[in-house]
Amino acid sequence: MTIALDGFGAEQGFDVLAEGARRAAADGIGVRVFGPERSLRLAGVSGIEVIPTTEWIGNDDDPVQSVRERREASVVRAARDVAEGNAAAMVSLGSTGATMAAATFGLRRLKGVQRPALAVRLPSPVKPVLFLDVGANIEVRAQHLVQFAFLGAAFSAAVLEVREPTVGLLTVGEEAGKGRPEIVEAHRILAEAPGVDFAGNIEGGDLPEAKVDVVVTDGFTGNVALKVMEGAARTLAGAISDLAHKNVLAAAGGLLLKPALGGLRKEFDPDTTGGAILLGLRAVTIVGHGSSGADGVANAIRLAARSVDVDAVGRTAALLREGHAGRAALAGDAVGDEAA
Amino acid sequence: MTIALDGFGAEQGFDVLAEGARRAAADGIGVRVFGPERSLRLAGVSGIEVIPTTEWIGNDDDPVQSVRERREASVVRAARDVAEGNAAAMVSLGSTGATMAAATFGLRRLKGVQRPALAVRLPSPVKPVLFLDVGANIEVRAQHLVQFAFLGAAFSAAVLEVREPTVGLLTVGEEAGKGRPEIVEAHRILAEAPGVDFAGNIEGGDLPEAKVDVVVTDGFTGNVALKVMEGAARTLAGAISDLAHKNVLAAAGGLLLKPALGGLRKEFDPDTTGGAILLGLRAVTIVGHGSSGADGVANAIRLAARSVDVDAVGRTAALLREGHAGRAALAGDAVGDEAA
Repeated sequence: MTIALDGFGAEQGFDVLAEGARRAAADGIGVRVFGPERSLRLAGVSGIEVIPTTEWIGNDDDPVQSVRERREASVVRAARDVAEGNAAAMVSLGSTGATMAAATFGLRRLKGVQRPALAVRLPSPVKPVLFLDVGANIEVRAQHLVQFAFLGAAFSAAVLEVREPTVGLLTVGEEAGKGRPEIVEAHRILAEAPGVDFAGNIEGGDLPEAKVDVVVTDGFTGNVALKVMEGAARTLAGAISDLAHKNVLAAAGGLLLKPALGGLRKEFDPDTTGGAILLGLRAVTIVGHGSSGADGVANAIRLAARSVDVDAVGRTAALLREGHAGRAALAGDAVGDEAA
Repeated sequence: MTIALDGFGAEQGFDVLAEGARRAAADGIGVRVFGPERSLRLAGVSGIEVIPTTEWIGNDDDPVQSVRERREASVVRAARDVAEGNAAAMVSLGSTGATMAAATFGLRRLKGVQRPALAVRLPSPVKPVLFLDVGANIEVRAQHLVQFAFLGAAFSAAVLEVREPTVGLLTVGEEAGKGRPEIVEAHRILAEAPGVDFAGNIEGGDLPEAKVDVVVTDGFTGNVALKVMEGAARTLAGAISDLAHKNVLAAAGGLLLKPALGGLRKEFDPDTTGGAILLGLRAVTIVGHGSSGADGVANAIRLAARSVDVDAVGRTAALLREGHAGRAALAGDAVGDEAA
């Protein structure tokens, strides 16, 4: 198993990225890194090959235009590496927009999918929830939200092994008419669509409480909501730790709770999950957190390898194909299986 | 001091609403309740007057149309009571849209304000953050977001006594070009606007960490983000309590931490803050949580009384008037001071 890794975009620097690659390689995963040889200092590491690359696409660059014009940029080369069969999946910690554009152009979409969506498994203490889109599509139409529901349900059933996953639409009230116009329209379509177990609208408070298996939203709202959850967990854990420092009784309590609290905090740490998976493409693409530490980088590579191992793409595609309703919904105004 | 209270819309029922009114009245606040006499059972309670009302507007009703047509609905009558000078402020736990429409039509907007916005004081453990809009305007234009920035900064300075409050725009990345088109445009205007200390974009994770004093967003995103924060706090507190039950060492730790944890949990409990305040109107309007307990109802009434006491409306209006830039920005395409 070999994974193509974008060698740029790690906010903590090349050392952290290289250390993450080393840890994944130590697990027996081959890693092909597209980045600067001298900064990465990975020469001679077993299982790792550095393909010297100096060009890259940053957060300030226009994603689509940059991917079209800069054929030698690291994220574009990583996608091409997968398309050419040198690697089974790609991982990038760089610009989400650029990764999405490079993967969509280079790896193509599954038949009938208009927009790939970025999905994360939320580390809810109740049960895992698949949450999408968390940043790939800032603006969506109703039909895109409907497709996300089918994509998310198929991935949840095929890869997370949830039987008949329930799908909720994230909005500002339980009633069918609540939310932006595209959400109201998506609700109407999903309520009548066979082939997906639509549980109706859910509100922000239901997200950490895991009331459904799959939560669908646009990439703007999903990105904000995900980061609010992570921030709230981080802040609350910090506040508990502060309290324990201020009060001698609480300090003793904190010490005793520490092993349990540590596990909880780790579950909410984005470094643990490794990143988000781009659903709807013909090959696995993982978007890691830009701020990942070495563990985050390693876990993103491991997530890519695991997703290939369980044939995430093939099984999701099969479930999409099989579902009559899924096919009907996806065929609605599909634009074929070529990237736009 | 007398407050007009919408006697419908409490999800926990009339008993809880009545008990909340009783607790506020016990503090010396006069309460005029517009609701069903027999269900409220408040006859003879000192400081409380029930004005028998049987009609109301629910979450399923179209807010603007219902407010226009149903002149005897409880929330419309509460607004009229304030307009007629019988009460100093109004409180409703019912439909946010109906409360906003009733208040906008009945109490009128401050000069130059196009859209009132719903603001909450986030109970961040770091420092209080004023967050708006959390549900009044599901769709906004750039100019509305700019107005929210001025409204929020003026309220923060006048009432929360923050000196030169910093304002952040909630979106999906720090760079100026990140987000929906109206956010990118609002960023451009705010970056050049004198009279407001614009700190640039902030991301979801910065919200619980209180990186700025005022956070501006549209009512859809704000509502989802607020509920995610509340849900995350509730879920995390529950998970810690579960852990303490599973493990004898952690249980001892939890017991010792309990007084400290209890305070933290209470800070995150919406019942503590009482509700959100509708900024931009000529009288104080408080939108309480539909799910409030009796404490939540009482605290919503207390928040209304306190806001009147500190002359929240007058001081916010004065700061808006004084700020040259504020005036310029608000005059941009103002539609006058009459409700639309």
